[in-house]
Amino acid sequence: MMAIKIPPEHPRAESLRIREKLVEHHHNGVVATAGLIAHGRGEAFDYMLGEKTTKQALNAINAAAATLLTAEKAVVSVNGNTAALIGEEIVRLANVTKAKIEVNLFYRSLERELKIKELLEKVGAHEVLGVGEDASAKIPELGSERRRVDPRGILVADVVLVPLEDGDRTEALVKMGKKVLAIDLNPLSRTSQKATVTIIDNVVRATPKLVEIVGKLEQDLKKCNEILLNFDNKKNLAESITLIKGRLSKLAEKGNYLTLEDEKHDL
Amino acid sequence: MMAIKIPPEHPRAESLRIREKLVEHHHNGVVATAGLIAHGRGEAFDYMLGEKTTKQALNAINAAAATLLTAEKAVVSVNGNTAALIGEEIVRLANVTKAKIEVNLFYRSLERELKIKELLEKVGAHEVLGVGEDASAKIPELGSERRRVDPRGILVADVVLVPLEDGDRTEALVKMGKKVLAIDLNPLSRTSQKATVTIIDNVVRATPKLVEIVGKLEQDLKKCNEILLNFDNKKNLAESITLIKGRLSKLAEKGNYLTLEDEKHDL
Repeated sequence: MMAIKIPPEHPRAESLRIREKLVEHHHNGVVATAGLIAHGRGEAFDYMLGEKTTKQALNAINAAAATLLTAEKAVVSVNGNTAALIGEEIVRLANVTKAKIEVNLFYRSLERELKIKELLEKVGAHEVLGVGEDASAKIPELGSERRRVDPRGILVADVVLVPLEDGDRTEALVKMGKKVLAIDLNPLSRTSQKATVTIIDNVVRATPKLVEIVGKLEQDLKKCNEILLNFDNKKNLAESITLIKGRLSKLAEKGNYLTLEDEKHDL
Repeated sequence: MMAIKIPPEHPRAESLRIREKLVEHHHNGVVATAGLIAHGRGEAFDYMLGEKTTKQALNAINAAAATLLTAEKAVVSVNGNTAALIGEEIVRLANVTKAKIEVNLFYRSLERELKIKELLEKVGAHEVLGVGEDASAKIPELGSERRRVDPRGILVADVVLVPLEDGDRTEALVKMGKKVLAIDLNPLSRTSQKATVTIIDNVVRATPKLVEIVGKLEQDLKKCNEILLNFDNKKNLAESITLIKGRLSKLAEKGNYLTLEDEKHDL
């Protein structure tokens, strides 16, 4: 993909900038080819959501923040797309929640693991688990290379944040008794349906918000427990689906396409 | 992306095979990096449609076949993804409708144009327009490199079939007075909204169907005119959006994820 200058006033400038970042990191070897296709799927759902953090996403972000703050051993699982798009925010989040960072790839190669580790260290990570021989433990009932985990990290964690995860792995982690916090744009995906807390949002918007809310809740464990008591993931998810449906209804009535300008007044 | 053996009984085997084909042609230089992301967007919409040719898509395929058969000068516009996924069907379609084939790329490079030409010739194309200096004419009001067209092809065509097109170009072609037949999985895209006939379907399913219907209608111009008189693109499009909406409704009620098995009985 050739570098194209994106005018800042372009209605889809933000979406295009994210795409450019991903393509750049694909050339660097951080992002897998399949990661580009996965990103496209995300773009489609984001477009239907209105490319913004919805009320439902905010509910889930609050619940995720409370879960992280009440965890014994939290781990943030990082893949190529996550490192490329939100490396810095992941490091910030790990710092404020005292979570560990672990690399976990579907298309595992030592080269790519090392590139991701290097990228994360460059933006401030002190320790990156799960690289090479460090991922010596295995998650039961999982076929792909994602089953390999670090015995100091995901294996012993009670809470795992999985931005951009696949369904099999989410299910396997939940079966191991872990609380899984997912960030996924597709409310119909297995990851979304199986996670303990599902944030239906773009990682690029959700992660800084999560860091912000963790900062606010940090000293208030009572509030954390209150949030967790009142949060119903299935209900929140169903509302996200209803929201997309509502937007499609409007569009079918109007019989014409969306612009980002419409979007701003749409929900 | 490493080559992964896809078991034929895998519920998403067809979708994975298409993906593999695209990744392979990305390595060959036929498919642009941005084409992979675009494919992902398509996958998301296809998933919401139920990964099948809907009644509405079939209506549009009939109208597209009738338009091609009543055209004076039809051209099929081919980009990297189209060549990679349906090269053979494009050649077959051009043969049965006496349409010309023209390469037209968003990320234009002579190297990629030549690769696409070669691929199309290998599957039987006699003539491929729009390569290199042959694309000496320009579509007015269009900024990108896609404005460059062949004076023997798109410039003088009355009907242009554009599988996987971008919105700007569709609009520009319509403004030039051409009938534009689009194949697009996103019913909300500008291409879908602006085209004369919009087929909301995967090119992999729609194109062989289009060839088949052209074969049936070939000798029956009266039937072609009847189809065209009865076809309302806006209405048909709105129905596709309503269909997706209906599927989301069901899912929000069920509150659980789709499997392809559910799909088969779903619509």
